[in-house]
Amino acid sequence: MSQQEVIYVGEKPASTYILEVLTLLKKGTRKLVIKARGHNISKAAQVTESVKRMTGGKIAYGQIKIYSEEVGEETEEKSVPVIEIEITSLL
Amino acid sequence: MSQQEVIYVGEKPASTYILEVLTLLKKGTRKLVIKARGHNISKAAQVTESVKRMTGGKIAYGQIKIYSEEVGEETEEKSVPVIEIEITSLL
Repeated sequence: MSQQEVIYVGEKPASTYILEVLTLLKKGTRKLVIKARGHNISKAAQVTESVKRMTGGKIAYGQIKIYSEEVGEETEEKSVPVIEIEITSLL
Repeated sequence: MSQQEVIYVGEKPASTYILEVLTLLKKGTRKLVIKARGHNISKAAQVTESVKRMTGGKIAYGQIKIYSEEVGEETEEKSVPVIEIEITSLL
């Protein structure tokens, strides 16, 4: 099974990730996962919807998963929500 | 088709919506949708994951949808990402 491209949406501006996704789609990547944690989850949704608009709707949503990851040192571990948004290119 | 409960996650603290969901689940609601827009999308994921933890994992995710809504007056309309997270009670 070919390794799926994963784009981690972090603290940079949304435009950085939008460009990254558009570049991958232009290079022919068929499927990729956009992943984000905590307060960056909203940005991940903004990125996918912006890519959808910019490609004239030429992406489809696959599975969207929400779960939790433990972050921080042992004594101060806490759960952070994570989203994984799978998108498929229709280009 | 019975009208599905929808919880709109907005500007209030996450705890407000977590309590709202737990109350509905305790009252026997089987399925509900947690909906949020823009920067509140992260809070929606936090709410569902907190409810999952607090119920000992007794909720399951159904369909998760991401799309855009137009907001604002005609001349200043803009697209805002929206998430709808369907959860099913396993209580």
